Amino acid sequence: MPGTPPTRFVYLGPEGTFAEQALYRVPAAERGSRTPARSVGEALESVRAGDADAALVPLENSIGGAVGVTLDELAEGEPLVITREVILPVEFVLATRSDTKPESIRSVAAHPQASTQCRNWLRAHLPDAVVVDVLSNGAAAAGAATGEYDAAICAPIGATRHRLEVIADKIADHPDAVTRFVLVSRPGPPPPPTGDDVTSLAVYIAHDRVGALLSVLMELAVRGVNLTRIESRPTGEALGRYVFFLDCTGHVADVRLGEALQGLRRVCADVRFLGSYPRHRWTPTVGERPVPAPAGLSDADYLDAAAWLARLRTGDPT
Amino acid sequence: MPGTPPTRFVYLGPEGTFAEQALYRVPAAERGSRTPARSVGEALESVRAGDADAALVPLENSIGGAVGVTLDELAEGEPLVITREVILPVEFVLATRSDTKPESIRSVAAHPQASTQCRNWLRAHLPDAVVVDVLSNGAAAAGAATGEYDAAICAPIGATRHRLEVIADKIADHPDAVTRFVLVSRPGPPPPPTGDDVTSLAVYIAHDRVGALLSVLMELAVRGVNLTRIESRPTGEALGRYVFFLDCTGHVADVRLGEALQGLRRVCADVRFLGSYPRHRWTPTVGERPVPAPAGLSDADYLDAAAWLARLRTGDPT
Amino acid sequence: MPGTPPTRFVYLGPEGTFAEQALYRVPAAERGSRTPARSVGEALESVRAGDADAALVPLENSIGGAVGVTLDELAEGEPLVITREVILPVEFVLATRSDTKPESIRSVAAHPQASTQCRNWLRAHLPDAVVVDVLSNGAAAAGAATGEYDAAICAPIGATRHRLEVIADKIADHPDAVTRFVLVSRPGPPPPPTGDDVTSLAVYIAHDRVGALLSVLMELAVRGVNLTRIESRPTGEALGRYVFFLDCTGHVADVRLGEALQGLRRVCADVRFLGSYPRHRWTPTVGERPVPAPAGLSDADYLDAAAWLARLRTGDPT
Amino acid sequence: MPGTPPTRFVYLGPEGTFAEQALYRVPAAERGSRTPARSVGEALESVRAGDADAALVPLENSIGGAVGVTLDELAEGEPLVITREVILPVEFVLATRSDTKPESIRSVAAHPQASTQCRNWLRAHLPDAVVVDVLSNGAAAAGAATGEYDAAICAPIGATRHRLEVIADKIADHPDAVTRFVLVSRPGPPPPPTGDDVTSLAVYIAHDRVGALLSVLMELAVRGVNLTRIESRPTGEALGRYVFFLDCTGHVADVRLGEALQGLRRVCADVRFLGSYPRHRWTPTVGERPVPAPAGLSDADYLDAAAWLARLRTGDPT
Repeated sequence: MPGTPPTRFVYLGPEGTFAEQALYRVPAAERGSRTPARSVGEALESVRAGDADAALVPLENSIGGAVGVTLDELAEGEPLVITREVILPVEFVLATRSDTKPESIRSVAAHPQASTQCRNWLRAHLPDAVVVDVLSNGAAAAGAATGEYDAAICAPIGATRHRLEVIADKIADHPDAVTRFVLVSRPGPPPPPTGDDVTSLAVYIAHDRVGALLSVLMELAVRGVNLTRIESRPTGEALGRYVFFLDCTGHVADVRLGEALQGLRRVCADVRFLGSYPRHRWTPTVGERPVPAPAGLSDADYLDAAAWLARLRTGDPT
Repeated sequence: MPGTPPTRFVYLGPEGTFAEQALYRVPAAERGSRTPARSVGEALESVRAGDADAALVPLENSIGGAVGVTLDELAEGEPLVITREVILPVEFVLATRSDTKPESIRSVAAHPQASTQCRNWLRAHLPDAVVVDVLSNGAAAAGAATGEYDAAICAPIGATRHRLEVIADKIADHPDAVTRFVLVSRPGPPPPPTGDDVTSLAVYIAHDRVGALLSVLMELAVRGVNLTRIESRPTGEALGRYVFFLDCTGHVADVRLGEALQGLRRVCADVRFLGSYPRHRWTPTVGERPVPAPAGLSDADYLDAAAWLARLRTGDPT
Repeated sequence: MPGTPPTRFVYLGPEGTFAEQALYRVPAAERGSRTPARSVGEALESVRAGDADAALVPLENSIGGAVGVTLDELAEGEPLVITREVILPVEFVLATRSDTKPESIRSVAAHPQASTQCRNWLRAHLPDAVVVDVLSNGAAAAGAATGEYDAAICAPIGATRHRLEVIADKIADHPDAVTRFVLVSRPGPPPPPTGDDVTSLAVYIAHDRVGALLSVLMELAVRGVNLTRIESRPTGEALGRYVFFLDCTGHVADVRLGEALQGLRRVCADVRFLGSYPRHRWTPTVGERPVPAPAGLSDADYLDAAAWLARLRTGDPT
Repeated sequence: MPGTPPTRFVYLGPEGTFAEQALYRVPAAERGSRTPARSVGEALESVRAGDADAALVPLENSIGGAVGVTLDELAEGEPLVITREVILPVEFVLATRSDTKPESIRSVAAHPQASTQCRNWLRAHLPDAVVVDVLSNGAAAAGAATGEYDAAICAPIGATRHRLEVIADKIADHPDAVTRFVLVSRPGPPPPPTGDDVTSLAVYIAHDRVGALLSVLMELAVRGVNLTRIESRPTGEALGRYVFFLDCTGHVADVRLGEALQGLRRVCADVRFLGSYPRHRWTPTVGERPVPAPAGLSDADYLDAAAWLARLRTGDPT
């Protein structure tokens, strides 16, 4: 039922990945059920089908960029909305069985993105080990646990789950790397505004109009709506056809964001609303501070202007 | 009382000028009283004081440009609104007493703007006559009637009133010259939209903000509001401080013009609404055709977008 | 000859007006000849014809606004360029013959704009006097000198010339009122840049293009060129056809203004260059301070970008 | 040596993938050496090191979107430039050893992106087969050849190389899917303009300036430069810090694109030029037609405006 807090959660599996770790940041998920899904598509499909109330999936990574499959799944099919974001530091560890001696490591299992992010550490500390590509961080840990590989690059939770020993932690080359996960539900009333919210959109522009993207940005700029992220994804029709994923500062309940949304609705071929939700408060060194409404663009300014217009229309030009 | 048709009219005198002629184009004025005023300021003051219901004053001329005093009077003091515009061809005639022979004309009385507009004709037909500056077209006709001058350049109505004979008509160098007059009343509900309306505004921008005028134009452009006139007038404080008079296509009751007005209200130091009124239908060779709402900017598009936003806010993102 | 300092000056007469007073602010004019002209048109025509080297004419007044006839004359006919501006405080005085007693003043001669600007003073000090409209401030002084009127509102220089006694000075309601005069010559190399210059332009836009004026402002804004004045004047063809007179911050020799000029040349129906000249340094309470080039828009930034482009084109992308 | 046609080519391996197939579209590569690289990074590194003259790597796919690793590698390290693009239809085939009967297929090896793109076909024709994720299309073919899996989804060239039999071709759900590859070299003079060129850029904007992306688009729009692609990639510093990859219509040797590039150089934190090269002529159903220069923005218009400015600066305002 809309408004009922979710109790059945799915997340991008397998167990022991960053997604599971991120899910523990959602208070309701600690009390509810938590089921791993084999893919982002499967996770979202189980929400659409009503088998789960909410899915936690990765949206972007500060090193690897957008998670294309998540964007594509949100843009297509039955509408879903984001109700929460979770920003998780990406802390890779090197883990082995407890009986493995560090100097005997000859093979390291890692998801290609993980080994890429730990390239410098591997060069410095395990220059002679062979890095073997596997399909997830969880699979790397599992492979080390069975003895197929001598070691695994994985998330801390992956080492714990597979009873591995962490012999080096924080081995990523970018110590500040984070992944942004989103909690996705079936449509319902958005969480109430907090004063520092994000609104996510998927915007389709007329591909044959020069300056169409400029028009989109002007609709936002004129209302003082700040854009914190823009990603393009192909629509699949042809090269050069894109859907743009925008994260805007503000909440659908704010007057100025509401006016901007209406403007986009009018000038774009299509706009899909992907949710308004509180901005994650992460550590001060990462990310931006909330931006106050520019002069003339606060809700109070909008109310004043609306009241003035109402007076004008009744013949009172003051 | 608001809504009551005006019956007491004033106009920029003296009698026998173009303003009186223009007033006859207003049906209600033919049945009401018509009083000349000595100046635009006096005409508008008598409306403000309640001594008249409406004043007809010149706003701009296709040759001489804006009538600064009218703009200044509209921008200051108690608010007044334009309820109608009248476009009048400026037809200058050369008029004399009936006993004056054309070849004996030695002096021609004319308002300086009138003689400027007839310069070529005077050079060709009366190269030796002295042109004497007087303070109005009506004064020129009066001076010819008393015999002070041999002839007058004046409006046809001026010749009629002073029982002069028109010995040459349409003597202006620009045969298509027109003057735009406006009928001004105390504030009240604007005339209903006709689908081809004008909205006049006086806009004060922050003089110390680079690009402030650009912001104003963007507020209009984003809503597809067309600007048909822009005039700057000094505010009187200092050089470089201007108030801008804008004529926009549309009516205050239109959704997109309403949104644009609210935008101006928010970004400008001040906005004074000067009325929404039907565009004068003049002859096809003069002026623009009505411009339909651009794609996405019709009232229907605005209603659709507002309904969509309302759905979003209740949790229905379709 | 181009480059030769002007020695023969004309100014908008008659003698004893503000224009003559302003001409004394031009050092070369003190040493050269100074001839009054009967009209702005006559003054500029004598420059075009080579009978004078430079003409001093009014361009705008902080109370009365633009002087339309000057704008029109600059926009049409053989090109002329502004080489200097002079800002003159408008100080009106009440002057009488020395034998007139203040309490006996029954009639005051004044140009209509002068009496308008002194309205409050007249109401307070001469509530019973009749104000008689005359055609120039100089004519007012002359009329008082001959005894036709008891007093005149005129410029200080007018009182001096006609040997009148100033019985009240600074009688204007706006004590800070100024008039901006410009010195106009036949085309020649502009005065060298000073770091705080003005460039004046007359710009014709395609009247049937929605947003044409917005395009003009964007050409300036993208180059960080500040607009200090914009005036529209009818082109004379029809209502709704305007030429825009722009004053921009910068000099035609500046790189960024040069690029903006080229942009206007490309997007506008026509652009007439009306000169680059030093901004008049007036008193601190009147007008703006010079605006430094925004980040990325200094001549040094332009040179850096041009050098980078040149490298790119030869295959060096650094 | 700059200007010498490349003879030593690398491509994203292993052998038998789409990249090798695309390389055959480059005439010089048919005559030169062709070496597979294990990763995009390795391919580009061998060009940087001088071990190869040019590398062919994937840039984007009409279904899967941008290839992030290629963008990241182009944006960092020693500059490289794109000299050519190749658009290749993505034709997936199902291949088996010649002795495998279709009805006996129980396992299908596929790169996850390949199986995603053939999802509908698999559901319809092999609903009971297990799809096994492998790390490249070439690895899938190799696995089928060794008998590890019953079948492989791969490129036609993969089937040929591993002597597999194609038992179904064009099995992708989007029959028009294409991948865009780029040929990348060390910096040198760009290929000559053809009248239909692409210029690729990596643009860093000031992350703390509201509207910074709008400024970038305005620099392009004012010069009529069309944007055919925009991709954001994280810079790796923090969430919310992006580098934008732009594909613009035009060539660095074009005047208007040159001016736009200079504008970006001035307003952006950094701009990296990634090459000007001919647009690939693909089939009419895919992609856009070349867009002629808008009114006022052709090279001829730029030359005219530059000549006019030069005249102005010497004192000839015509």
